[in-house]
Amino acid sequence: MKGNIVVGQSGGPTAVINSSVAGVYAAAKKLGVKKVYGMVHGIQGFLNDNLCDLDEQIGGEMGIELLKRTPSAFLGSCRFKMPKIEGHEDVYEKVFEIMEKHDIECLFYAGGNDSMDTVKMLSDYAAAHNKPQRFMGVPKTIDNDLPITDHCPGYGSAAKYIATSIKEIIRDNESFGVEKPTVCIVEIMGRNAGWLTAAAALAKGEDCGGVDAIYLPERVFDLDKFLADVKELAAKKSSVVIAVSEGVQVADGRYVCELGKEVAVDAFGHKQMSGTAAMLAARIAEETGLKTRAVEFSTLQRAATHLASLTDINEAFQVGYDAVLAAEEGKTGMMITLDRNGDAPYQCGTSAYDIHAIANVERKVPDEWITEDGKGLNDGYIKYARPLIMGELLPVFVNGTPRHLVRK
Amino acid sequence: MKGNIVVGQSGGPTAVINSSVAGVYAAAKKLGVKKVYGMVHGIQGFLNDNLCDLDEQIGGEMGIELLKRTPSAFLGSCRFKMPKIEGHEDVYEKVFEIMEKHDIECLFYAGGNDSMDTVKMLSDYAAAHNKPQRFMGVPKTIDNDLPITDHCPGYGSAAKYIATSIKEIIRDNESFGVEKPTVCIVEIMGRNAGWLTAAAALAKGEDCGGVDAIYLPERVFDLDKFLADVKELAAKKSSVVIAVSEGVQVADGRYVCELGKEVAVDAFGHKQMSGTAAMLAARIAEETGLKTRAVEFSTLQRAATHLASLTDINEAFQVGYDAVLAAEEGKTGMMITLDRNGDAPYQCGTSAYDIHAIANVERKVPDEWITEDGKGLNDGYIKYARPLIMGELLPVFVNGTPRHLVRK
Repeated sequence: MKGNIVVGQSGGPTAVINSSVAGVYAAAKKLGVKKVYGMVHGIQGFLNDNLCDLDEQIGGEMGIELLKRTPSAFLGSCRFKMPKIEGHEDVYEKVFEIMEKHDIECLFYAGGNDSMDTVKMLSDYAAAHNKPQRFMGVPKTIDNDLPITDHCPGYGSAAKYIATSIKEIIRDNESFGVEKPTVCIVEIMGRNAGWLTAAAALAKGEDCGGVDAIYLPERVFDLDKFLADVKELAAKKSSVVIAVSEGVQVADGRYVCELGKEVAVDAFGHKQMSGTAAMLAARIAEETGLKTRAVEFSTLQRAATHLASLTDINEAFQVGYDAVLAAEEGKTGMMITLDRNGDAPYQCGTSAYDIHAIANVERKVPDEWITEDGKGLNDGYIKYARPLIMGELLPVFVNGTPRHLVRK
Repeated sequence: MKGNIVVGQSGGPTAVINSSVAGVYAAAKKLGVKKVYGMVHGIQGFLNDNLCDLDEQIGGEMGIELLKRTPSAFLGSCRFKMPKIEGHEDVYEKVFEIMEKHDIECLFYAGGNDSMDTVKMLSDYAAAHNKPQRFMGVPKTIDNDLPITDHCPGYGSAAKYIATSIKEIIRDNESFGVEKPTVCIVEIMGRNAGWLTAAAALAKGEDCGGVDAIYLPERVFDLDKFLADVKELAAKKSSVVIAVSEGVQVADGRYVCELGKEVAVDAFGHKQMSGTAAMLAARIAEETGLKTRAVEFSTLQRAATHLASLTDINEAFQVGYDAVLAAEEGKTGMMITLDRNGDAPYQCGTSAYDIHAIANVERKVPDEWITEDGKGLNDGYIKYARPLIMGELLPVFVNGTPRHLVRK
């Protein structure tokens, strides 16, 4: 590559999105690229010419190692979606103007569905207007819902966090067994696809019976049936732990967390929002008199780099690295995919795939991996997901907490 | 010791309460005690003669190492409080009857305030009735609210989890900075004492600006002042992260989480409970239009052994170990305390202290460690708490999640 490059991060952060930036940076250094720029707050910052120099930010090998262990978007993220080209040519021209100004030959963008749409739009515009600049997508999303690629960097670490935390919650919930049963409802992210909630199935092992039921957004949620299920479970065992996706919907299409919203007001007359787990736990307590607890993993499931999967960190690095190699070969308008070659031993390569087949397409948990009763995952899923949570990369602990790399 | 011993766990679990059982077991083995029994579900299980043999449960050194890394109460816990002696002599006699049946010379009980009351009552009964059996308390509580002892095993690990997770949440919250500010409210356990919430102050360091405010139950909570504080912060920075104790109360004594309860009903006419953070986040959103998020650490802060403090694990082990040594010397009706001898380097010894000065006494965060504005902790607290979160003990990862020891 003769010119410079720029890398940006977009959408919800993950535990390993910075590892992809590290991969882009490492490959560029290897290829002798002169300047590696970072977009500060994604394409939105880029449009304001808000760039940083990754040599100054990362420095050397220690910087790369710390970056791999730093959660969230080191460069800053954004939720900006490129407008449709027609009528907004000025926005597109602005991107190319800034690229030219900094002699940027190729733009790398790490993100999920929306971010891949940005890559598509920009490469389409370049093709239509005979621009030489290239655009490559780097996959990233805890939601694991990008198509074509076997899985998405970010998912393995979120799944490892979920499996580990659920296991710890099960241990905690089991500790009181003498009195009446305790029902714990754990709410997990994923509005449309149940990939993250499915990871609760990974808690099961020789030393753990696992969760008692998993409710995915891929199945219609029946509140009466749910309450009956809980009663049946609580009649049999003193500790019941259930994983529920934040995205479960009842038959008429309303989210479970929306069921009470309209009239839930506080003492001041203000409306109050309530989570799915809180709502279900309250309902169980009322209907059954059982002791309940609601846990919401919230931000933690996408930010807990201290418990990241080594496999995930390495693959996140690899897709960044290989995006640069693909661009070096002249590729553009593509996203790097992870291609699984085997399960035992787990092997995964990469390739570059046409962004048009990827942008804006959402992949759900396949039907064949959901158990017949709709309340669990079968071995097909376990076989798929287990390799993704394997391995650990220790944080660098300083003064009792993990040290992160911070943008200057 | 000529006879056998028994150890039990009581109250809310911690990340390291099992390390205390390991300490009791290791000391007993060292002293050649014949049988080390475990109470299954504390004194409540003991009253039903529900015991297990720790040789069978733990086995050898590998068992001890796994037990140290297993969250929650390995032996099972309970919330049973011994009744007052007068009129309930039968309950007390039952305890001694079971001790005699198994030739148990000394009973060790790991727990917090209520559990120390059990130790007090039993040792008082023994003294009053000339019984030879001995009773020793082993401190344990994430709440850190036992008096006399410098700190309580369980607190350091909870504090490490809170500091690390808050740091990761701050990173996540900072990632979107282009659009309007995001305010994240993190709710932390501790109904009466603010020790756990104070640990949010430990997130601050060279690589992290820390939380923007900390609201402890030691100070009256003023909702209007709080909203004004948030507005002021959001005017200055794009990411605001605030730690709030679940136990904060307004001037009339109501908990903040209770403010909306009376009229918060869902679509079915059922009352809904709402957490402190959820309630405050909703109020901020309404009053300011800012983007808000509520995070509740819930069970995780007491169960996350995967992120335990090595100092805490070692001290939890030590108080169990030293309780056995003290009993061997003939002591009874006492709890082992942690006595700090120095901060730099941190040094901590143990001694045995009269249980009457400890049971049912609650220690709060000292006034002199709370900043003048009531919204933070000063260096006095940091100096106190930092050593307690130092060091890590790696989980034994099997198939991607930490392996635990499970009762057979």
